[in-house]
Amino acid sequence: MIGNFVYSNPTTLYFGKDACANLADALKAFGSKVLLTYGAGSIKRNGIYEDVINALTVAGKEVIELSGVMPNPTVDKMNEGARIARENDVDLILAVGGGSTIDYAKAISVAAWYDGNAWDHFFVEQKDPQPGERIIPVGAVLTMVGTGSEMNGGSVITNPVQKLKIGKVFGTDVMPRFAILNPEYTFTVPRKQMVAGIFDIMSHILEQYLSGDDDNTSDYLAEGLMRSLITSSRVAVKEPENYEARSNIMWTATWALNTLIGEGKSQDWMVHMIGQAIGAYTDATHGMTLSGVSIAYYRHIMAAGQQKFARLARNVWGIPSAGKTEEELASAAIEALADWIKEIGAASEISSLGVTEEMLDGIADATFIMTGGYKTLNHAEIVNILRESL
Amino acid sequence: MIGNFVYSNPTTLYFGKDACANLADALKAFGSKVLLTYGAGSIKRNGIYEDVINALTVAGKEVIELSGVMPNPTVDKMNEGARIARENDVDLILAVGGGSTIDYAKAISVAAWYDGNAWDHFFVEQKDPQPGERIIPVGAVLTMVGTGSEMNGGSVITNPVQKLKIGKVFGTDVMPRFAILNPEYTFTVPRKQMVAGIFDIMSHILEQYLSGDDDNTSDYLAEGLMRSLITSSRVAVKEPENYEARSNIMWTATWALNTLIGEGKSQDWMVHMIGQAIGAYTDATHGMTLSGVSIAYYRHIMAAGQQKFARLARNVWGIPSAGKTEEELASAAIEALADWIKEIGAASEISSLGVTEEMLDGIADATFIMTGGYKTLNHAEIVNILRESL
Repeated sequence: MIGNFVYSNPTTLYFGKDACANLADALKAFGSKVLLTYGAGSIKRNGIYEDVINALTVAGKEVIELSGVMPNPTVDKMNEGARIARENDVDLILAVGGGSTIDYAKAISVAAWYDGNAWDHFFVEQKDPQPGERIIPVGAVLTMVGTGSEMNGGSVITNPVQKLKIGKVFGTDVMPRFAILNPEYTFTVPRKQMVAGIFDIMSHILEQYLSGDDDNTSDYLAEGLMRSLITSSRVAVKEPENYEARSNIMWTATWALNTLIGEGKSQDWMVHMIGQAIGAYTDATHGMTLSGVSIAYYRHIMAAGQQKFARLARNVWGIPSAGKTEEELASAAIEALADWIKEIGAASEISSLGVTEEMLDGIADATFIMTGGYKTLNHAEIVNILRESL
Repeated sequence: MIGNFVYSNPTTLYFGKDACANLADALKAFGSKVLLTYGAGSIKRNGIYEDVINALTVAGKEVIELSGVMPNPTVDKMNEGARIARENDVDLILAVGGGSTIDYAKAISVAAWYDGNAWDHFFVEQKDPQPGERIIPVGAVLTMVGTGSEMNGGSVITNPVQKLKIGKVFGTDVMPRFAILNPEYTFTVPRKQMVAGIFDIMSHILEQYLSGDDDNTSDYLAEGLMRSLITSSRVAVKEPENYEARSNIMWTATWALNTLIGEGKSQDWMVHMIGQAIGAYTDATHGMTLSGVSIAYYRHIMAAGQQKFARLARNVWGIPSAGKTEEELASAAIEALADWIKEIGAASEISSLGVTEEMLDGIADATFIMTGGYKTLNHAEIVNILRESL
């Protein structure tokens, strides 16, 4: 059943090899001052920086640069960006990078003109900007695929002192007004980052899929996205510059987390909650924290959601039902996921991400407990799942 | 491969049992004069008219009513609506009905302030409104499911004198600004109309799916939508008031034709072209014209697209590959579609829609020939397909 909801998505996407040729036009809708944010500077080595600066020049923009956005953007970095955006009174924040950079731009977007502690207000207390509060528009040039941040309101910020990594889903005003999606811009991403992104996509889909017992169109769409992702991931890990595979993965990532496949249904999100807590403790790559805990988590909740795991086996992994019990089928789905994690080279063990036995209790404490999945976890169960994931 | 495209969809959807409770709020964004369009008046018998008038009253709107929109809206009716919209200088056209009524509202939207022959300009010559040309915003309350008109720019208008039924896909300015989607509003639709809508949805998906030989995420999404539709249609024909089934069908219809599953890929659309020509000759229900010609058309083109038909058999109809050639599998997909048409009660023969042997040449003449599918048809082939569909 499709439940009650409001759907609205204001992001205009420019997709394809020549997508960046639209950037100068897309910039016309905004004022003259642009805050250009990016990460460690890889965009200066692969030509993307030049494409973007050219478009900004053609559009006649005054550019303020803010680089050094880290993979897990911190509160301090957010506050620095907010100050720069405010002092320069920028009209647009243009994020060039992956999910971290776009998430970061959204955080600045709301924090710049907020008088108070933006971390406490928007992230810890999960408050929304109120009507009349100034929000700076965000645009994006995507260079790394996975988070779906290019077409949603999500923003994840880390507080290393408090050991908290918190995601906030903002509304349509904070979503990117436009995003440039050129699959070739992702070719030079290091293999590990590509694989982490691929698992992040799979996890987004599973978080929305593995909940509910009703018949729901969203679940069929989720199955389609997973089948496409599995097919293309197997090509991409062998041939990172295969345009067909990389373009499919890019498009799958966008639709895996722009609300479509979660509309009108319950959702889980515990893998992300545990993964984010690991990220706060270790600064590990997001997608790898998810692959590292997924198998132990799914084995733990399998009995409670057996029917859906069995459906996952049949409809996504193509495992024949004949001669198998529902329980065997459900288990086979999880083992197929475990095999695929190894096949693409994602992390199977969180010890490889720097997690130690001593951290487990703290990570479990830092984990937000969600209630939409097949089973609501307690502290001890989270510690057990983490231990089994070591 | 996902090709190059721009994606943007401005429609806000309010979905669910209480969706109409959002209408008064949604109306606030527009001026005071609303042109309310609807069909033969069934909305006055099922309570929907009252819900809509209440919302218009709460929102303080002045309402001009324009009823009598027919299943295949005509040029004369479009011109009448355009005149009324212009004379009253309306700020919004609110369509309450199915695809015909919403298509009609879009046609008025562009025709009202166009100086000249709107039929020739927008439909025959397929021109787009130019920047600066006034477009009246459109809103929709959906009461019949199938066309996807609630979230796209499509509008189909019929010229009975010229015996032409032409679809035009307008841009984002003409797309509904909002749409109210309450599955319960579709419960009282006559069974034949519900079934015609269900086949229309299937046809929209197949038109986009049955083209191209590459690996494309869009095709996986299409498979998911088809599986959901087949499952829910089997419930809905037995229990028309099954909310789960009707809500899934409603949501599937929207995403079957709001550009998502066609992005970045080639498309066919010949079933619609032939079906529309039949509609111009017979005034038959749109969805039934599509079911009536689909099987003969697909048998005719099967050899050219064998691989995709075989994939349809495996991934949508769940037909096991074992022991079958690709050709046998492909054929099985078409026969499964033929069986499903009978099962849900859609038309299998166009003679039942009033088509006679004498009309075939004229219908073939009135058929626009598209080139995106597996085979480009000529006049004689269209006549043959029509004859086999009698």
